[in-house]
Amino acid sequence: MELSAKFLAQLLKGTVEGDENAVATEFAKIEHGKKGTLSFYANPKYESYVYTSEASILIVGKDFEPKEPVKATLVRVENAYSAIADLLKYVSEKKKKAKRHRSLRARWFLSTRFGKKVYLGAFSYVGRHTTVGDGTIIHEQVYIGDNCTVGKNCIFYPGVRIYPGMVIGDNVILHSGVTIGADGFGNAPRPDGSWEKIEHLGNVVIGNDVEIGANTTVDRAQMESTIIGNGVRIDNLCMIAHNVIIGDHTAMAAQTGIAGSTEIGKYCIFGGQVGIAGHLKIADHTTIMAQGGVIGNIRKEGQVLLGSPVIPARQYMKAYALFKQAAE
Amino acid sequence: MELSAKFLAQLLKGTVEGDENAVATEFAKIEHGKKGTLSFYANPKYESYVYTSEASILIVGKDFEPKEPVKATLVRVENAYSAIADLLKYVSEKKKKAKRHRSLRARWFLSTRFGKKVYLGAFSYVGRHTTVGDGTIIHEQVYIGDNCTVGKNCIFYPGVRIYPGMVIGDNVILHSGVTIGADGFGNAPRPDGSWEKIEHLGNVVIGNDVEIGANTTVDRAQMESTIIGNGVRIDNLCMIAHNVIIGDHTAMAAQTGIAGSTEIGKYCIFGGQVGIAGHLKIADHTTIMAQGGVIGNIRKEGQVLLGSPVIPARQYMKAYALFKQAAE
Amino acid sequence: MELSAKFLAQLLKGTVEGDENAVATEFAKIEHGKKGTLSFYANPKYESYVYTSEASILIVGKDFEPKEPVKATLVRVENAYSAIADLLKYVSEKKKKAKRHRSLRARWFLSTRFGKKVYLGAFSYVGRHTTVGDGTIIHEQVYIGDNCTVGKNCIFYPGVRIYPGMVIGDNVILHSGVTIGADGFGNAPRPDGSWEKIEHLGNVVIGNDVEIGANTTVDRAQMESTIIGNGVRIDNLCMIAHNVIIGDHTAMAAQTGIAGSTEIGKYCIFGGQVGIAGHLKIADHTTIMAQGGVIGNIRKEGQVLLGSPVIPARQYMKAYALFKQAAE
Repeated sequence: MELSAKFLAQLLKGTVEGDENAVATEFAKIEHGKKGTLSFYANPKYESYVYTSEASILIVGKDFEPKEPVKATLVRVENAYSAIADLLKYVSEKKKKAKRHRSLRARWFLSTRFGKKVYLGAFSYVGRHTTVGDGTIIHEQVYIGDNCTVGKNCIFYPGVRIYPGMVIGDNVILHSGVTIGADGFGNAPRPDGSWEKIEHLGNVVIGNDVEIGANTTVDRAQMESTIIGNGVRIDNLCMIAHNVIIGDHTAMAAQTGIAGSTEIGKYCIFGGQVGIAGHLKIADHTTIMAQGGVIGNIRKEGQVLLGSPVIPARQYMKAYALFKQAAE
Repeated sequence: MELSAKFLAQLLKGTVEGDENAVATEFAKIEHGKKGTLSFYANPKYESYVYTSEASILIVGKDFEPKEPVKATLVRVENAYSAIADLLKYVSEKKKKAKRHRSLRARWFLSTRFGKKVYLGAFSYVGRHTTVGDGTIIHEQVYIGDNCTVGKNCIFYPGVRIYPGMVIGDNVILHSGVTIGADGFGNAPRPDGSWEKIEHLGNVVIGNDVEIGANTTVDRAQMESTIIGNGVRIDNLCMIAHNVIIGDHTAMAAQTGIAGSTEIGKYCIFGGQVGIAGHLKIADHTTIMAQGGVIGNIRKEGQVLLGSPVIPARQYMKAYALFKQAAE
Repeated sequence: MELSAKFLAQLLKGTVEGDENAVATEFAKIEHGKKGTLSFYANPKYESYVYTSEASILIVGKDFEPKEPVKATLVRVENAYSAIADLLKYVSEKKKKAKRHRSLRARWFLSTRFGKKVYLGAFSYVGRHTTVGDGTIIHEQVYIGDNCTVGKNCIFYPGVRIYPGMVIGDNVILHSGVTIGADGFGNAPRPDGSWEKIEHLGNVVIGNDVEIGANTTVDRAQMESTIIGNGVRIDNLCMIAHNVIIGDHTAMAAQTGIAGSTEIGKYCIFGGQVGIAGHLKIADHTTIMAQGGVIGNIRKEGQVLLGSPVIPARQYMKAYALFKQAAE
């Protein structure tokens, strides 16, 4: 995508200083700017780069007064931070809008229902009686089973797999390799020590405005539903087991695992590689730091926890300091 | 699927009390029952829900005597627990039987051999000289390389990948994103500190009645075979490295990793996020609790272990209590 | 593949003792040799197996003097170790060379550019303006988005996903389920506690001679590039977050995770399930043992670290010994 200084000034309600036909095709940090890149300057710490940067276009705040000559064309805006956020959104929206058709190399059925302006990529499969909302983008090689309900303006990247009967809200982003609805890990021991598979007939229900990272798995409930609340953010390679409930706006970093039937509150934040045992309740606003292990209920809201099993993070760091000293 | 009270009574060898034409299309826990759902009541703790439940059909034991009026149609059976297990099995079998054809949008070869009643979904690929047993269901977008042997009545969900030369038993369930047979992580250091790839020409051999969860990876052996025993259960996002051997009926929870050439006994149970180093032997009936790390052989059977590195779980919890206290 | 003793002697510059028409189709360890297998003998510890092995062909060093009769045909070579390495390479190369065409069931565009001798499997998708170098093998069901640059002699196994705009060097091996270029986990908190997605418009740049294991994910940079250096080895199910830089010849075992913007040095070695926090610098030649957690910069080169957070491995093991004793 080519962005001219003139166009940027219009889009971001700013003014141009320099060549209004200057053009950028890529973003770069100011210190790495080169011909054809667009950078922004907001933090005074980086001011020296303004004068050395080879970027073609620089977005700066309206109050910035250069102390030396600047090579780049400047686009002055009210607030450089929010301008860049608006710009990234614009670029991202634009990319989405380019895609609006169903590939003849995809597979769907008479009973599949597509809303308006749906994109369906090659080698994707959308099952019987499944409904896909307006504006949803289903990239290549995606699988959506029978009897699913998919909301509006979702983006499913290549290689997403959704088992039959799942329910997915609006504005949900699923990255490549995400698997929604595999059977929970339910096995009843037989007297001889072997395992009887417990059938899983429930589903997964995902709210609105959720993003799930690459290769994360969310298992179906044994009965009823595994539930991902509105606004939840899950990073790559996480494991959400059967019948788990995740409260609205909770965020968890990569490789975190939550065992079966655990109920996570709202507005929680988990670092990477956190593990939470099954059948627990975790209070709202709980922070668990990376590699923490949780084996009991957390009833008090707003704690910051660390360790395996977790204890208050300060206590852990103090105890760990003593642990280290002991070896000296 | 629609299930009437009449049909349920026949299937489960029970009797109907109420409207024999009452119909359910979904399962729900008794406390969440609503019109069109089927619930079961077995644990006296939940008796009060029998009288308030809006479920259309309730499965109850033959000896249950209601103390208040019940809205739902009752299906009385010998034992409510085993009836529900039978019913779940029936539903699950029925789903399987519906699928019996090979999609013309799949790819296979003259030398590929399919048994009777095999399902092959769109965009799946089954290689040359590969054999697939009777009744196996290969869903959409599955890859099976050349020279593989797949047993009877397996289910491979969309996006399963099986490299060439692998051997898979009967009744094996592989969930979406499972990868069987990628090269082991074998690298020999060169004098200059760079790595020489060690070629992996062995395979993976999976026994009968195995289930492997979504996005788990099982690497091929360097020579000979990585072996998964009969009746083994592996949860999502686990890593089974090259030349590992897993004994019959061992079960491991999500995100567990086992490094190269380690031999795991029979009837072991591992919690989530367990890590086991390479070239070790783990005795039968070993339990390793979540996030445990194993760096030495475990020779004594039947231990319950915890910590990194693992020690007896009780000892760990006691030592950890002292660790916490030290900071107070 | 059938290998005769005569052919092996030619290939490995050795001599045959026994039936030069003896044929092997598989490799096996000497102690597991059977008819049709090829084994090698180099370590005197295993000499007794030479006399009992049922292998059809045995590769041995030129100086080996049998003390008892040997059933197998011997192929004598200068050095048995390097002969087997040469042989494995030969077999592996031969497998690659068999594949040289583009499937009509794949999808590509007029603006897609393929080098010479490229293989493209069924149900694979290669986007617009993407360039693929000579000799690269793109197996079945692979996705490569628009505007990517892929080098020479790469191998992408089934189910690899490469988002648009990525850059991949020569001789890069990506195993099944690898995802390159998903959005980084970037979320800015709104005043009400919900999350604003931070758009990610950067890419991933992978050097030459890199191998990445099954189901590993490498996220795109927010701006600019996530960088994987030359000769890097990444095992299965690892997570490389947005804007991470990994130095040349670093190797990391399975299920390791590296958070956003961290810079890893050259020649580092990480065990399995290691976690490294974001925005850190890790010195060259750092070894982090399995399950280690890193929360601060590591400035001194060549350390061996362990624990969460990591401390020198010796110190950790000593402190852990005291920790265990405390409970006795």
